[in-house]
Amino acid sequence: MRIRMAMIGGGKGSFIGPVHRMAATLDSECELVAAALSSSPANSLESGRALGLPDNRNYENWQTMLERESKLDAGVRPHFVSIVTPNHLHYAQVRESLLAGFSVVCDKPLCLTVSEAEEIGKIVSSSGRVFCLTHNYTGYPMIKLARDLVRQNMIGDVRKVAVEYFQGWLSADAASAGNRQAVWRSDPGRAGIAGTMADIGTHAFNLAEYVTCLKVTSVCADLSATLYERRLDDDGNVLLRLEGGVKGSLLASQIATGEENNLRLRVYGERGGISWEQMNPNDLVVRWAGKPYQVYRTATGFGDEGRKNMAYTRLPAGHPEGFIEGFANIYRAFFRSLRDNALNIPYTRDFPGIEEGIRGMMFLEAVVRSSEQNSVWTSL
Amino acid sequence: MRIRMAMIGGGKGSFIGPVHRMAATLDSECELVAAALSSSPANSLESGRALGLPDNRNYENWQTMLERESKLDAGVRPHFVSIVTPNHLHYAQVRESLLAGFSVVCDKPLCLTVSEAEEIGKIVSSSGRVFCLTHNYTGYPMIKLARDLVRQNMIGDVRKVAVEYFQGWLSADAASAGNRQAVWRSDPGRAGIAGTMADIGTHAFNLAEYVTCLKVTSVCADLSATLYERRLDDDGNVLLRLEGGVKGSLLASQIATGEENNLRLRVYGERGGISWEQMNPNDLVVRWAGKPYQVYRTATGFGDEGRKNMAYTRLPAGHPEGFIEGFANIYRAFFRSLRDNALNIPYTRDFPGIEEGIRGMMFLEAVVRSSEQNSVWTSL
Amino acid sequence: MRIRMAMIGGGKGSFIGPVHRMAATLDSECELVAAALSSSPANSLESGRALGLPDNRNYENWQTMLERESKLDAGVRPHFVSIVTPNHLHYAQVRESLLAGFSVVCDKPLCLTVSEAEEIGKIVSSSGRVFCLTHNYTGYPMIKLARDLVRQNMIGDVRKVAVEYFQGWLSADAASAGNRQAVWRSDPGRAGIAGTMADIGTHAFNLAEYVTCLKVTSVCADLSATLYERRLDDDGNVLLRLEGGVKGSLLASQIATGEENNLRLRVYGERGGISWEQMNPNDLVVRWAGKPYQVYRTATGFGDEGRKNMAYTRLPAGHPEGFIEGFANIYRAFFRSLRDNALNIPYTRDFPGIEEGIRGMMFLEAVVRSSEQNSVWTSL
Amino acid sequence: MRIRMAMIGGGKGSFIGPVHRMAATLDSECELVAAALSSSPANSLESGRALGLPDNRNYENWQTMLERESKLDAGVRPHFVSIVTPNHLHYAQVRESLLAGFSVVCDKPLCLTVSEAEEIGKIVSSSGRVFCLTHNYTGYPMIKLARDLVRQNMIGDVRKVAVEYFQGWLSADAASAGNRQAVWRSDPGRAGIAGTMADIGTHAFNLAEYVTCLKVTSVCADLSATLYERRLDDDGNVLLRLEGGVKGSLLASQIATGEENNLRLRVYGERGGISWEQMNPNDLVVRWAGKPYQVYRTATGFGDEGRKNMAYTRLPAGHPEGFIEGFANIYRAFFRSLRDNALNIPYTRDFPGIEEGIRGMMFLEAVVRSSEQNSVWTSL
Repeated sequence: MRIRMAMIGGGKGSFIGPVHRMAATLDSECELVAAALSSSPANSLESGRALGLPDNRNYENWQTMLERESKLDAGVRPHFVSIVTPNHLHYAQVRESLLAGFSVVCDKPLCLTVSEAEEIGKIVSSSGRVFCLTHNYTGYPMIKLARDLVRQNMIGDVRKVAVEYFQGWLSADAASAGNRQAVWRSDPGRAGIAGTMADIGTHAFNLAEYVTCLKVTSVCADLSATLYERRLDDDGNVLLRLEGGVKGSLLASQIATGEENNLRLRVYGERGGISWEQMNPNDLVVRWAGKPYQVYRTATGFGDEGRKNMAYTRLPAGHPEGFIEGFANIYRAFFRSLRDNALNIPYTRDFPGIEEGIRGMMFLEAVVRSSEQNSVWTSL
Repeated sequence: MRIRMAMIGGGKGSFIGPVHRMAATLDSECELVAAALSSSPANSLESGRALGLPDNRNYENWQTMLERESKLDAGVRPHFVSIVTPNHLHYAQVRESLLAGFSVVCDKPLCLTVSEAEEIGKIVSSSGRVFCLTHNYTGYPMIKLARDLVRQNMIGDVRKVAVEYFQGWLSADAASAGNRQAVWRSDPGRAGIAGTMADIGTHAFNLAEYVTCLKVTSVCADLSATLYERRLDDDGNVLLRLEGGVKGSLLASQIATGEENNLRLRVYGERGGISWEQMNPNDLVVRWAGKPYQVYRTATGFGDEGRKNMAYTRLPAGHPEGFIEGFANIYRAFFRSLRDNALNIPYTRDFPGIEEGIRGMMFLEAVVRSSEQNSVWTSL
Repeated sequence: MRIRMAMIGGGKGSFIGPVHRMAATLDSECELVAAALSSSPANSLESGRALGLPDNRNYENWQTMLERESKLDAGVRPHFVSIVTPNHLHYAQVRESLLAGFSVVCDKPLCLTVSEAEEIGKIVSSSGRVFCLTHNYTGYPMIKLARDLVRQNMIGDVRKVAVEYFQGWLSADAASAGNRQAVWRSDPGRAGIAGTMADIGTHAFNLAEYVTCLKVTSVCADLSATLYERRLDDDGNVLLRLEGGVKGSLLASQIATGEENNLRLRVYGERGGISWEQMNPNDLVVRWAGKPYQVYRTATGFGDEGRKNMAYTRLPAGHPEGFIEGFANIYRAFFRSLRDNALNIPYTRDFPGIEEGIRGMMFLEAVVRSSEQNSVWTSL
Repeated sequence: MRIRMAMIGGGKGSFIGPVHRMAATLDSECELVAAALSSSPANSLESGRALGLPDNRNYENWQTMLERESKLDAGVRPHFVSIVTPNHLHYAQVRESLLAGFSVVCDKPLCLTVSEAEEIGKIVSSSGRVFCLTHNYTGYPMIKLARDLVRQNMIGDVRKVAVEYFQGWLSADAASAGNRQAVWRSDPGRAGIAGTMADIGTHAFNLAEYVTCLKVTSVCADLSATLYERRLDDDGNVLLRLEGGVKGSLLASQIATGEENNLRLRVYGERGGISWEQMNPNDLVVRWAGKPYQVYRTATGFGDEGRKNMAYTRLPAGHPEGFIEGFANIYRAFFRSLRDNALNIPYTRDFPGIEEGIRGMMFLEAVVRSSEQNSVWTSL
C-alpha cells in the first residue's frame, strides 16, 4: 500500500510545494492525504480543494491538522509530514510534527539558528521518527557517483574544492515587482540572518561537504546586499578551509544577471578531478592527469558504482532525468528508511538529515559573522 | 476530480509502461483505476497488485477489462485507456477500446499497416472519442517553440531539414542476451515490417513533419539488417523530399555503438537555422546569418512564444526538465482536450493523433518498399 | 636552411592563399621566395610586392615563373610550388610545375575530372617529385588519432559512418553581392561539374575514407541547386556504401543558414563510436557500450597514440590549436617527405596525395551522375 | 618591408619562446634577425643556428647582443627586442634594451616588485620607445568584444566579476621529474615572491581589469604551497573588491588535477552577463534577463563591434583560431603602434603595456601580503 503524506505549506503561488508533491508521488509509492497548505486559512482550503483533498482532511492551519491527524487510526493516519513553508516557520512545525508522532520531511534550510537546529536534533533522536532535509541536489545520481568516487579513493586524497551557485533573478527588483518568493526570501523576519546564503549558499555548502566527505572548518566571507536597499545578502564570496588542510571556495549569487540555476561543483584530488553542473545533471566529468577525460552518464551501468546508481534512475541512459527526478530520489530513499524504521530495522540514511541541517546553520552563522568582521576567518 | 485511466500492457519488465504512468500522474490530474498489464494473466495480476490496484479492477486480460469497465457507472468508469503493448497488438486494442466507448492514448507506432491505421481513423471519427498517439518528443517545450518559430516565419521559408536518431543498444546481440525489448522489437510478428525504423525512425519522421509544418512527399531509403541474423532493420539512411521542393535526410540507427538516445533535428530556413538535441532538451539553438546565435531555454519567457511555452513547463528556468516531463506534456494536452470534449467543446488538439499515426505507417511502408527496390524514390 | 616555396595564386582577396602562406611558414621551416599571385598581371605584381617579394622573383604569370625559376641554381631555386588557384586551373599548373622539376602542393579539389586526375598521377609517378593535396582537415591531431584508433581496432570493425559538412554562406545570394569566392565556386567553367560537393563535399568524403580506412564503393545522391538560379549544387545528401558492407551517409550544404564551417564525422564500430567536430577540433569523443565515454584532447600524451600525435602539436594541452595549425601539419609532413626524397630515402606519406585526389574526382563524378539519374546507386 | 625582431631567451626547451616567434611572424610582418636565446652561451648559439640565424647575429649573451645590434645601421638594426626569459631577468633586460634604443616586448609578469616596475615605467616614458607586455589573453577577439560590450554599457553597470584560472600540471611533482618550467617557476630566486599567482594569477587579474574597465582596489587572499615542500604558492583563492563597490573573486591553481589551461571569466552587469572560456575562445556568451542568451562568434561581423573585431581575425567564422592567433594579435597591435611611433604619430595602445605591468606587480604584492596576514583585506 502507499505511504501517506501530510503537507504544511505549498499552496497556490508556492514554487517548492508542487515540487515536493511531484517528487513524493512520482514513483506511485506515496499519496497526499492531508494538508494545511497556507498561512491564510482561506487560501489553505482553496488550495487543498484544487488538489482533490476531501474536506475533512483539508485544514485551515497546521496546528489543527497535526492535532486531528495524529488521532486517526494507524491505517489512515499520515506516515509523515512534509514541511514546505518559509524558513522562520520550520522550527515550530518540525518540532510539533515530531512530537505529534510523525516522521518529517522539511525543506531547507532547517531553521534560523544553530541552537534551534540542535534542539530539533534532540527531538528527532528521542522521537524515534525519521527526519529528512531536502538538500535535493544530493539526489542526483551523478552526485551520488561523485561521492562514491571520492570515498573509494579513485581520485586520491582531496586537495581542493570549488563550488558556486549563481542565479540572476534578484538582479532586478523582484520584491517590489511583487514576486512572492523575493519578498519573503529577502525579509530577515522570515528568511533569517541571511538571504542568498540561506537560500542557495547552504545548498552549495551541503553539496561540497557531501561529495568531498570533508567538513568545512572555517570560512572567510564577503557578503553583499547592495541592491534595492535589501536587508539581506544577495551575493557572497567565501574562502573555505576544510579538514586536512584542504582549501576551497564557495561563490553564491542571485544578482548574476542571466544565470538561471547554475550550481557547479569541482573537486580535485591527487590523481583526478571531478566536475558537475546542475543544469546538465546527467554528466559527471572526471579528469585525469595526462589521459583522456571521462564522462559518466546517468543510467549507464559500470561496475559497482553503476549498479548502485541505477537504484536512483528511472529510465535508460539518454532519456534525460531532471530536477524533479533528482528530488524524487530524496523521497525514494526516505521512504525506504521509513519502511525499515516501521519494522524496527536500523536504517541506512541515504538522504540529508538533521546533521546536515545543523551544519547548514553553523555555516550560515559563520559566514555572517565573518562578513560582519570584514572577512576574518571564522570557525564553524 | 481526477481523470481516471485504465491501462493495457506495461507490467513487470516493461520500459514504456512506467513512463506512461509517471507522465499521466505527474500533475496530479489523473489516477490509474484499472489495468490488464500483461499478456500473461499471472503476470498481469501480479503487476497490478504491485501498483496497488484493487482486485476487482485488476484484470487477467484486456478483453475482460474493456467489457467490465465499460459497464461501470460514469462516476467510476475510466475516462480513457492507455495502450502500451507491442506494436502488433495496437490495432485490435485501440479499436476495441474505442468501440467500448473509451478515449485512447496509444504508444507509437500506431499499428502495422496503413490500412489498419486508416480503419482506426474511421473508428476514431465516428466514436466521438479523443485519440492520442504518444510521439512524446513533440511534448518538449523547445520543440513546440521550434514549430512556432517556423510557423511565424521567423526563420523564413524552410529549405532543408536534417533529422537523425542514433542509439547503440543493438550493437550487441541484445535479443540473445535475453533483453525483452530487443526480442519483440526485432520480431516481424510483433514489431511489423520494420525494426529500427518503426521503433525510432517514426519518431524522427514525426518530429521533422511537426516542426517544419511540411509533409514528406517521397523517400529514398537504404535499410540494413546486418547483425546477428536479424530479420528487421537495425540501421537505415533515408533521403527525403518534402513539400515545396524542400530536401532533407533522416538517419536512424540502433547499432551506433555508445550512443544513448541521440535524437537531433536541424531545420534551415531562408533567414535562420534551428537546432535541437533530445539529450539536451531545454536548449533550442537558433542561428542567424552574420549575427550571434541565440539559445532559447525552457521556462524563460520571451514574447508570445514564451508565454505559450510556459504552459508546458513546471519549474523555473535552470531546473532541468526531462523525458518524463516532456511525456507528461502530451498527457497534459490530452487531458485538456478530454475535458473540452466532455463538455462538447470542439477541442484544439495539441498532441499527436490519428493523422500522425497514419503518416507514420505511410512512412514505414514507403521506406521499406524503397529499400527493397534498391533505394528507388518512393512516394508516401 | 629553410625550404623555399613558390606560389601560384593567392593574391589580394584570396581566402586560401594567406592560409597556405601562414601554414607553410608557421614552423619557420619554409619561406616564400617567388610567386605569381594572380591571373591579372597587375594584381599579381602588386600582391607580391605587398608580401615583400623582390621584383625579380615576383611574376606577372605562372608560366613565366616556372620557366625562369626552374633555371635558377639549386641553392636558390624553389623546392616546391604551392598552387592555390580556382579548380579549373589546377590541372595545367600542377602538370607544368611537375614537368619543370618542382614538387607540388595543390589545394583541393585536384582538378575537374577523373581522367585529368589520373594523368596527373602518372606525371607525379614519373617525376620523382613529392605531391601533396591539401585536404587539410586530416592535419588535425585528433583526426590522426581517430584513424589510429580505427587502425588499431580499438573500436572493432567499422559498421557505420556519418559525415556532414554544413555551411550557410550561400543561403544569401553571395555571388550577386560580389563575393569573389561565391562567383567562381558556383561557375561551372571554373569550379567544374559540382559546386558544394566539389568545395566541401570532397573534404567530407576524404575525411570519411581517411578515418575509416575504408573505400566508398557506391553512392546514391540527391543534389540540389535551387537558389538564385545557380548552375551548380549548393546542397546535397548522399547515401554511401563502403567496403565490407558498411553503410553511411554524407550530407553537405552551403545553404544551412547560420552554420559556419560545421564539418562533423562519426564512425561506429563493433565496440565503440568516434565523434569529431571541426569547430571544436581539439576534442575527440570516443563512446563505449555501457561505459563512461572518453574525450581525448590535443597534446595530451597517452600511450603510443599520444606520442605520435604530439608530433603534430605545438603547444601544451589546453592552449587551443586551430585551423591554421591543422593546415600547417599538412605542410610539416610534406616538408619531412621533401627532405627524405631529396636524400633518396623512400618516404612515408603522412599527408593526402595523388590517390586522394583521384578518389575525390571519382566521388564527384559518381554523385553528379547518380543525382542526374534520380539517385540511382552509382559505383565509384 | 618587414619589422625586425631580436630575441632574448626562448632557446631549446623553452615553451614561450617558440610561441612568441610564431606569433610575431604569423602575418609575415616581422622576421627574427638577431638573438641571444639562452643563459648558456653554448645553448644560445646552438638554438640560434637551429633557427637559421647567421653567425654574426647569433649571440652568446644578451648584453653583447644589445651592444652590437644597437650600433648597426638603421636599415638592419632590430626595431625591437622580445624578452622571453624567466621573471627575475626581465627587469635588467627590459631596462637595458630600452636604454639601447629598442622598443620592447616582454613576457609577463613584468618583473619582481612594484618598485622595479615603476622604474621601468619611467624609462619607457623617457625613452620614447614602445613597450608591450604579453598578457596575451587580451588578444583574443572575443575578449576585445567583451570589453567593448562593457564599455558601451550594453550589460549596464558592472556588479560582479568571477575569474578563475585552473591548471593541473603541478599536481604531480613536476620539478623533481625534471620539468624545466616547473623548476624555475617554483624557485623564489627566479620566479619572485609568488608562484602560481605570478605565473597565471596575473593573467586572470589582468583579464578581469581589462574587460570590466574597473580597477581592483583590495584583495583578501588565501595562498597555499602545500605540495612537495614547494616554497611558492601552487594554489590560491582571492576575494576582490573593485572600484564602485563591485565585488569579485579570483581563483588560480596549478594543482587542479586534470585541468589543462582553464581560464574563465564571467562579468555580470545590471542588464546582462558575459561568460568566456579560454579553451573555447571563439565563443562569447552573453546572457540577458528573461531572454534567449546569445553566443557571439569570432569573425562573425555584427555592427561596430563586428567590424572592429574583424581587425583581429584571419579566417572566416567557423575556422577555429587559437592561442597562437590570439598571441599574434598582441604583436599585430604592437606593430601598428611601432609604425605610428616611427612616424611620430601618437599611437593608440591596443595591447598591454607598462601600466598593466605595474598593476600586476601591485596585485602580486597585495595577495602575498594579505595571505601572510591570514587573509586580511589589503589595498593595491
